[in-house]
Amino acid sequence: MEESRPFMDQLAGATQQRGNPVVVGIDPRLGSLPDALTCNLDVSDPSRVAEAYRQFSYGIVDAVAQHVPAIKPQMAFFEQLGPAGMQALLDVIVHAQNQGLLVVLDGKRNDIGSTAEAYAQAYLGRRPHTVWGGDALTVSPYLGDDSLEPFVSACVKHAAGIFVLVKTSNPGGKTFQDLTASDKTIFEHVADVVERMASETVGTCGYGAVGAVAGATYPEQLGELRARMPHTWFLVPGFGAQGGGAADVAGAFDERGLGATINSSRGIIFAQRREPYSGRYSDAQWQEAAEAATLDMISALRAETRCSQLGNSAD
Amino acid sequence: MEESRPFMDQLAGATQQRGNPVVVGIDPRLGSLPDALTCNLDVSDPSRVAEAYRQFSYGIVDAVAQHVPAIKPQMAFFEQLGPAGMQALLDVIVHAQNQGLLVVLDGKRNDIGSTAEAYAQAYLGRRPHTVWGGDALTVSPYLGDDSLEPFVSACVKHAAGIFVLVKTSNPGGKTFQDLTASDKTIFEHVADVVERMASETVGTCGYGAVGAVAGATYPEQLGELRARMPHTWFLVPGFGAQGGGAADVAGAFDERGLGATINSSRGIIFAQRREPYSGRYSDAQWQEAAEAATLDMISALRAETRCSQLGNSAD
Repeated sequence: MEESRPFMDQLAGATQQRGNPVVVGIDPRLGSLPDALTCNLDVSDPSRVAEAYRQFSYGIVDAVAQHVPAIKPQMAFFEQLGPAGMQALLDVIVHAQNQGLLVVLDGKRNDIGSTAEAYAQAYLGRRPHTVWGGDALTVSPYLGDDSLEPFVSACVKHAAGIFVLVKTSNPGGKTFQDLTASDKTIFEHVADVVERMASETVGTCGYGAVGAVAGATYPEQLGELRARMPHTWFLVPGFGAQGGGAADVAGAFDERGLGATINSSRGIIFAQRREPYSGRYSDAQWQEAAEAATLDMISALRAETRCSQLGNSAD
Repeated sequence: MEESRPFMDQLAGATQQRGNPVVVGIDPRLGSLPDALTCNLDVSDPSRVAEAYRQFSYGIVDAVAQHVPAIKPQMAFFEQLGPAGMQALLDVIVHAQNQGLLVVLDGKRNDIGSTAEAYAQAYLGRRPHTVWGGDALTVSPYLGDDSLEPFVSACVKHAAGIFVLVKTSNPGGKTFQDLTASDKTIFEHVADVVERMASETVGTCGYGAVGAVAGATYPEQLGELRARMPHTWFLVPGFGAQGGGAADVAGAFDERGLGATINSSRGIIFAQRREPYSGRYSDAQWQEAAEAATLDMISALRAETRCSQLGNSAD
């Protein structure tokens, strides 16, 4: 049966059903893959490396699928392997959706006019509407409001979503985003455009098809953005390996514990190489380590944020 | 023999040698392809459409290769066809470089930290340094200065280039780019970061590895950016189908007729469907029409800009 609920309603439903807002970032990096997948690997052959990425990503999906609402493949790592990597990405999307997961493609795409439309037609909407079948895509705002419109149209048409870069948490994020024009920072200008588009596409969950990538350089900032963007679902990076903890993202949620999806990538997918999991799990137990890190992240979020009001925890 | 000259030196050399600054945009759109490539085409099969895109792109490359320095494939249209489209893109890159053309990949990529590095390692540098083998890539600046640095490193390492979005000519380009902060527009803030990175990577031609995508909303604006960014080579969109003429881009060039590459996509590649070429060429003569449109664009640029000072025209 084709899913026709708006994407953010699907995401809100999955978040309620799983009882947590975690999205697992699928960022395969050759140097961090488990030994079992890389021993005897001819790293000069992109198709062999792509096969390792496929196996690794399937393994992570299998480890977390019953616990979380969504995964977020980072397209750059698949693109790095050429067409073979792109085929692996497509296979991972299909595999994850077959396991009941929503898939947010992290590609930070955009362009003008009919080219933005081509990106939207490439990635937004499940097969057969598009070849890639993404449920959502991250999008860059620099080209302006008209560059976002073809994506919004595709979202409405195919029950998909976008997350527009608003505030990024990298050190250089402030270079342009924090400049102040007419008494607002640039990221607040972007936030206001995104919120307008979100408010025009609101589903039954109260959030629109247009979300925001919202990091924070201080914990209160997410709360300020939450107040500024009441119809905008947040995709929040930076948990775990990038330094943020559950308390730091608490401001992103609404009073129901909805409105935000929290991403962790390396902290989950390479947990067997990181404390405290490296002491508990062997390299061969990378799936168990990833599952344990996921459950710990869920517990922390339920302990320290309004996510405690969501349905029963998956663990 | 491996090309080790910095990319902008290669581009300057090719521009001098061909006597013009034209880059032909390869933007295959199914609805605009010549009938010969689409009759009996099963458009529901992405691999069949990708084959048509490959044939079309090869045909355009063959028609223009002896006349212009470079082509610019628009990645969105290939991505729209999934992995089969990406394979076609790779084949087009190889085919164009085998014909002596430089290839600017128009993907407007970017991300933070190690993910930006993955994009750089994916696209910047000829095979076998990367799978894709691009000579240059367009890059989005919203994530800030540190997001650009991995690209700059890859450019220096592999004789590649990037073109960072500074000023785009779409109507919505002004939404954020034209906001004023601390007495400068946002695009001027971006321009100043780009110029700094360009000045730190200058080759013998006087331009650095970091270029700028510089459209203009009025003709004088390109001249203002040229003065502001003396070490930054411009990739100028908007010629032809988007409304700009040769006089409108004159300000982008330096006194030698260098410093800018002018893009036309639809105006060349679908010339047989547009005036005045549609009256002179049949649909089956799409390659002849593309070549004629290219030569007319070269003539106009040499007549109305400092390109007249470049080496002998290719025609």
